[in-house]
Amino acid sequence: MVSQAMKNLGTARSVIRELFEYGNQRAAVVGRENVYDFSLGNPSVAPPPVVNETAIRLLQEPNSPIHAYTSAPGDYAARQRFADSLNRRFQGNYKPEQLYLTVGAAASLCCCFHALSCPGDEIIVFAPYFPEYSVFIAGAGAKMVVIPPEMEHFQIDFDAFEQALTPNTKGVVINSPNNPSGVVYSLETLQKLAGILKEKAAQYGHPIYLISDEPYREIVFSGFQVPWVPHLYEDTIVCYSYSKSLSLPGERLGYVLVPDQVTDSADVYAAIAGAGRCLGYVNAPSLFQQVTSLCCEETSDLAFYERNANILVPALREMGYHVPQPGGAFYLFPRSLEPDDLAFSERAKKDFDLLLVPGTGFGAPGHVRLAFCVDTGMIERSLPKFKALAESYR
Amino acid sequence: MVSQAMKNLGTARSVIRELFEYGNQRAAVVGRENVYDFSLGNPSVAPPPVVNETAIRLLQEPNSPIHAYTSAPGDYAARQRFADSLNRRFQGNYKPEQLYLTVGAAASLCCCFHALSCPGDEIIVFAPYFPEYSVFIAGAGAKMVVIPPEMEHFQIDFDAFEQALTPNTKGVVINSPNNPSGVVYSLETLQKLAGILKEKAAQYGHPIYLISDEPYREIVFSGFQVPWVPHLYEDTIVCYSYSKSLSLPGERLGYVLVPDQVTDSADVYAAIAGAGRCLGYVNAPSLFQQVTSLCCEETSDLAFYERNANILVPALREMGYHVPQPGGAFYLFPRSLEPDDLAFSERAKKDFDLLLVPGTGFGAPGHVRLAFCVDTGMIERSLPKFKALAESYR
Repeated sequence: MVSQAMKNLGTARSVIRELFEYGNQRAAVVGRENVYDFSLGNPSVAPPPVVNETAIRLLQEPNSPIHAYTSAPGDYAARQRFADSLNRRFQGNYKPEQLYLTVGAAASLCCCFHALSCPGDEIIVFAPYFPEYSVFIAGAGAKMVVIPPEMEHFQIDFDAFEQALTPNTKGVVINSPNNPSGVVYSLETLQKLAGILKEKAAQYGHPIYLISDEPYREIVFSGFQVPWVPHLYEDTIVCYSYSKSLSLPGERLGYVLVPDQVTDSADVYAAIAGAGRCLGYVNAPSLFQQVTSLCCEETSDLAFYERNANILVPALREMGYHVPQPGGAFYLFPRSLEPDDLAFSERAKKDFDLLLVPGTGFGAPGHVRLAFCVDTGMIERSLPKFKALAESYR
Repeated sequence: MVSQAMKNLGTARSVIRELFEYGNQRAAVVGRENVYDFSLGNPSVAPPPVVNETAIRLLQEPNSPIHAYTSAPGDYAARQRFADSLNRRFQGNYKPEQLYLTVGAAASLCCCFHALSCPGDEIIVFAPYFPEYSVFIAGAGAKMVVIPPEMEHFQIDFDAFEQALTPNTKGVVINSPNNPSGVVYSLETLQKLAGILKEKAAQYGHPIYLISDEPYREIVFSGFQVPWVPHLYEDTIVCYSYSKSLSLPGERLGYVLVPDQVTDSADVYAAIAGAGRCLGYVNAPSLFQQVTSLCCEETSDLAFYERNANILVPALREMGYHVPQPGGAFYLFPRSLEPDDLAFSERAKKDFDLLLVPGTGFGAPGHVRLAFCVDTGMIERSLPKFKALAESYR
């Protein structure tokens, strides 16, 4: 008597959530310090102090309309600040009218998928990918097409990609720095991707939109660069969120940027606004529109994540794990030590109290995800366990 | 090349927004004090001081996880506080597990409509109704069936209602106190509604869910009572928001309550959670989950609205306007003085600087909506204009 699809989504087993809850139960038995929980991608560094200072200052202003409705695309002054920041950082010429503020990255993606999808349309994603993409794309009525992972470096398997493109391809999603692999797409990868998309769009006679889902844009490690995708491909729509850069995942504040260079940009922007309306997003939370836009050139202490990576990656490699080099975000995606990543994750959990998420859910079996947005002490304590886990396979 | 439906929604002319913007332009010409803008339903009284005090206190706590993800249905302690408050006020036995926190009332409704709607389902609404219902119901893939208004008191035309019920009726939406009429459904109306629904549900062999959209629940005038709908009809799902009671419309915080007594309540709750996931609502904004739940027994100075009503209603009636008695909210819905409410609204605007929203958009032609959540001085200054408007029709 209810929608079966919605009920299924609401009752679906979440491997990540179950691991996290197992960890809490296990901690009650063996002590929190003896459970090594790498399951959740929850930012572990505090927001920069300016965030709460700004919020408090705004809340102390007398007779302030800070809690009032804003216009649906977001307060104009806030959008101006975001545009100014993008223009300074990326030498753009973006205007408030090209930004649509959203209730976080998930909302940014949902608005884009609903805006772009016509009956029969396909949206391409590259494995390994954020599992909710499949929910959001199906919800928008499009068909998700998955490109299998390029197993050595988690760049793009271009042969598989070219074979998957069809006249029904409406959009392609990239997520760099990547969840779950931590990999950053190289300039070369992005240029090659752009070249293929341009060629195919010309061949099909319609644009192929590149949806750049980049909530980890600011978390980039030494020696890596995250290119500004709209400079490489005109039909790029940028989806952003302040969840990671300012450690505000609970507050739900992000945006969609539709640059003027995008084909039919006015229609795309209007459809995104229409999708926001249809999905019940009246406006992005008003206080945090102001807070994030006033703090948008600040970040949390993101170097913390790199320090964790610099402990984990060499240590795991020395133990014999195959670990693709993370260039950003706060994830590692090593190969499991047996082909069945679910069995590997289970052994790590049961025998070593290491909570690792199987790669199968990300479209990349044979791997596990470690979210290292955790206390550095826990990482150091976990290393003997990883070593013992590896030895158990010898 | 984009979704035509989403583009249409994003570019649709908003009569309310246009009136509001006309008012701003006109104010620049004749002075703000000479424009009588009754267009927007934006709460005009400040939140109670405890709201910002609580927010500031939470933001000052060191090492607080206040900005972290919460569980998808909302922080458990916050839901416990909401449940406790409902139990105290309505003698219920509600539990946190029956509450799903949302990004405001629009999100509450969207989650319900998506959760309940199966192919071919119909959702009944009573005119006059909040126009976005049509967007949200269509977005969920259901068919909206409108019951014409009961023109004298804006209770329910039960003959028309009974004729509209079919085996495809999945849900019925009520909104009392009502936007746009300000009318409160009487106990008698609700009892009769419940009786019919029970009879028809038994006849059809499946539940008919009553979706009680009640963001104005706390704004009730002397001599009126808003019955607690779940006490009158078992299959009631309550949609609430703190936009009005705490004057926080921009912060987007509400909930859906699925009482245990609801048929298939576990499935309904799961489907609502699944809809929240599908629509990209990761969690309701975290800081305001805490703030609203800690302040949920407080309200803004809601008596302000009744004082405005007590000036407007007798004055307009004395001038000859037919004004249904408002029992709550902050709207009046008088008859237009000519059958064409659009022409009436236009004359009021052009000749008298009175900005009144035509009733046609609410499914009730021949009326206009006045949002009196405005400065009392403006109401007093507007009375001669209303009088002159009436005289222009003699």
